[in-house]
Amino acid sequence: MSDLDRVLARVDADFEAALERWTDFLRIPSISTDPAHNADTRRAAQWLAEQLRELGFDASVRDTPGHPMVVAHHPGPGGDAPHLLYYGHYDVQPPDPVEEWDSGPFEPTIVEGPHGRRMVARGAVDDKGQLMTFVEAFRAWQAEHGTLPVQVTAFFEGEEESGSPSLKPFLEQHKQELGADVCVISDTGSWDVETPALTTQLRGLLYTELVVDAPDHDLHSGLYGGAVPNPLNALGRILGQLHDDQGRIAIPGFYDAVVEPDEATRAKWQALDFDADAFLQGVGVDAAGGEQDRGVLEKIWARPTCDVNGMLGGYTGTGAKTVLPARASAKISFRLVPDQDPEAAAEQFRAYLHGIVPAGCSWELIVHHGAPAIRVPTDSPYLRAAREALENAYGREALLIGCGGSIPVVGVMKEVLGIDSLLMGFGLADDRMHSPNEKFEVRCFENGIKSHVALLDRMARGVGT
Amino acid sequence: MSDLDRVLARVDADFEAALERWTDFLRIPSISTDPAHNADTRRAAQWLAEQLRELGFDASVRDTPGHPMVVAHHPGPGGDAPHLLYYGHYDVQPPDPVEEWDSGPFEPTIVEGPHGRRMVARGAVDDKGQLMTFVEAFRAWQAEHGTLPVQVTAFFEGEEESGSPSLKPFLEQHKQELGADVCVISDTGSWDVETPALTTQLRGLLYTELVVDAPDHDLHSGLYGGAVPNPLNALGRILGQLHDDQGRIAIPGFYDAVVEPDEATRAKWQALDFDADAFLQGVGVDAAGGEQDRGVLEKIWARPTCDVNGMLGGYTGTGAKTVLPARASAKISFRLVPDQDPEAAAEQFRAYLHGIVPAGCSWELIVHHGAPAIRVPTDSPYLRAAREALENAYGREALLIGCGGSIPVVGVMKEVLGIDSLLMGFGLADDRMHSPNEKFEVRCFENGIKSHVALLDRMARGVGT
Repeated sequence: MSDLDRVLARVDADFEAALERWTDFLRIPSISTDPAHNADTRRAAQWLAEQLRELGFDASVRDTPGHPMVVAHHPGPGGDAPHLLYYGHYDVQPPDPVEEWDSGPFEPTIVEGPHGRRMVARGAVDDKGQLMTFVEAFRAWQAEHGTLPVQVTAFFEGEEESGSPSLKPFLEQHKQELGADVCVISDTGSWDVETPALTTQLRGLLYTELVVDAPDHDLHSGLYGGAVPNPLNALGRILGQLHDDQGRIAIPGFYDAVVEPDEATRAKWQALDFDADAFLQGVGVDAAGGEQDRGVLEKIWARPTCDVNGMLGGYTGTGAKTVLPARASAKISFRLVPDQDPEAAAEQFRAYLHGIVPAGCSWELIVHHGAPAIRVPTDSPYLRAAREALENAYGREALLIGCGGSIPVVGVMKEVLGIDSLLMGFGLADDRMHSPNEKFEVRCFENGIKSHVALLDRMARGVGT
Repeated sequence: MSDLDRVLARVDADFEAALERWTDFLRIPSISTDPAHNADTRRAAQWLAEQLRELGFDASVRDTPGHPMVVAHHPGPGGDAPHLLYYGHYDVQPPDPVEEWDSGPFEPTIVEGPHGRRMVARGAVDDKGQLMTFVEAFRAWQAEHGTLPVQVTAFFEGEEESGSPSLKPFLEQHKQELGADVCVISDTGSWDVETPALTTQLRGLLYTELVVDAPDHDLHSGLYGGAVPNPLNALGRILGQLHDDQGRIAIPGFYDAVVEPDEATRAKWQALDFDADAFLQGVGVDAAGGEQDRGVLEKIWARPTCDVNGMLGGYTGTGAKTVLPARASAKISFRLVPDQDPEAAAEQFRAYLHGIVPAGCSWELIVHHGAPAIRVPTDSPYLRAAREALENAYGREALLIGCGGSIPVVGVMKEVLGIDSLLMGFGLADDRMHSPNEKFEVRCFENGIKSHVALLDRMARGVGT
């Protein structure tokens, strides 16, 4: 039996225990965006560091101005072995609306689905399940061979869901320690449950909050309505002017920096077996939104968006209250594509608002965080190694795909450490990331571990040219 | 000393006790629109009935499918005395946002202000303080003369702030019992603290709720944004199309039934000493909203409106959450003017929505309640009696004014009992009805009691022709 096959057999033998470890990790409500859970977020970091110590890593929890980083080093076999930097995030999205979960968001539950068993919990796939695919791969290698076949640094942050404010400063301060040949990230998707994929394009993100005020206190809508500006009416008017009739974002200059995908890429995407109707029906809608002259896949992978994520103002309780409220607010985020710059986009939005906020209203635009879109080089020996590892685990060729989501760390790794990233992920489109009843297929978890086991092997054999 | 002067002296002597009784009434959190306060709402009805029994009324609390009615009869002196029906409501608006109150909304507090003492509590003016002006007038007459100078029926409902669903059926069932010559209501305003007024025009009201859905669960805005309809974007787009660039309501046909005030009325309003800038600055805005080609007073008294009263959807907590939410909703109410019909306006709105809700979204329009605008006849002996009573109490002529708010009972009284209403109120523009820190000036409360004492006297002397 080859070295690789022995490790894969170890994965099988130890699999139920791996599920238990994943479950323990999921129980910790590490919600980074909510200060009430700061202690839980730290606890998740400590749990990960302890796991890695068991596997022969020199692991530590490093404080930052925000949530701590986990930094762990394994020397590997020494000599000329490549040095891989694995990245993940141990924080999760808020679980609300909690009442829509079938089981507790932090009470991990395995249920049966069309693909066999699935784990249901907040963070099941994003990102705890996915990062455990390589932690378990390390465990299996270490258990079988007493070491890893390459030099490995594992690096985890706890702020990915809240804009990663501490990430760049930390990487800059620890540039020497964290240098490696390439970064490996599991936070994206497969093409489907049987077909693996590498993601080569990610959208960027700009997250803002708009607050509109008019009267200095809530007013009676009879005594003042029609003469005093209503911030909710104003906010509605503003939101209604963010897009034109064709679904295009109406902010002047917004599309100027957009670079369309090249012909080869568009042809590849066209050739993918994508059923747009089924995709939309899968989330309960019968017509697409957005730009009317573009296909669904192209819109998600290569076009920018403007989405209202939250809206609040006035009386929202039971029944009626004829109030003309003092304040209205909306959380508005933009997905960006190459080569849009988040700061420039924010300024374009701000300039547009100056022109469209109705008279009599005051307003404030808060920019929470931003990150540009990413294109990952496809003519890379690391990418070829990843494709071979995936084909080994799945028995099927890996597709090269885009992704509508954003993983800002990829840009930061390139900018600060000068390294590219391999986006080798195992999620599925229906995993309900950021939604109630988030899940990760146990089959995908298993394929993920085995793909990472194979990647370590392929990297150890040398990536050549 | 005349009969009238003796009663006015009694009012002065008993005034501090009247403030105590008013305070007791204000302590009861009779929030009709919130079922959690049903017992409190009933308790307020019982308190009122007990007050009236002390004053020689045959008073009872009458159950309805909703909150109870209070019906109380005083035979008066007998003979040919006119029969007056007094109306008020013992329910109050919800107090939120509670954190913006300086004192508890149901912990009535007297503080000093520019006009002397003022009572601060939810319901201080709307409507408990105002209805107590005539209940205290009854008390003073009864205490001084052992009877009232006219036949009086006092009728109070507990659902005015939630659309009065039980009102019309109850009046229809008790038409005989509640018949009278004229209805007297204190739920409107003076012109200012020194100048009394009678309100001769009220706006109508149509209260709706719009719910927009698209995906069947909250989605990740990266994985779906730009291709799946976003109900918050859609709601923003809809709200943005409710008005045109000139501030006019954009619903087709909405203004068709609107009747402009006649020349005489417009001239009267023009002659009023109204400072529009001060009015707007008083609520912290420096520019008017609404139709750009109309003055402030005209807009509030004689033009219809469309106001968003509440808006809710998506993630509204601390920080960022990149969700594409499943549902968005808004509470949208319209103030109506003569001769708009609430049902017709609702259908116009519904028809407009059919055309503007974006593809891929489903929606529902809930119509909570509606009432048409009211014009009160000015050439009436009752109105002349009220003017004289106000002049007696204030030492100054009463103005005839409009009101931007709605008091649907006026239309119901006319329709079911065939009687007109006298809108003799004592509120001020800065009383913060429906807002935190609602107040009623003690001076206005006192003037109100004395105006009602004088009205009873004037009515007893015969209203003639």
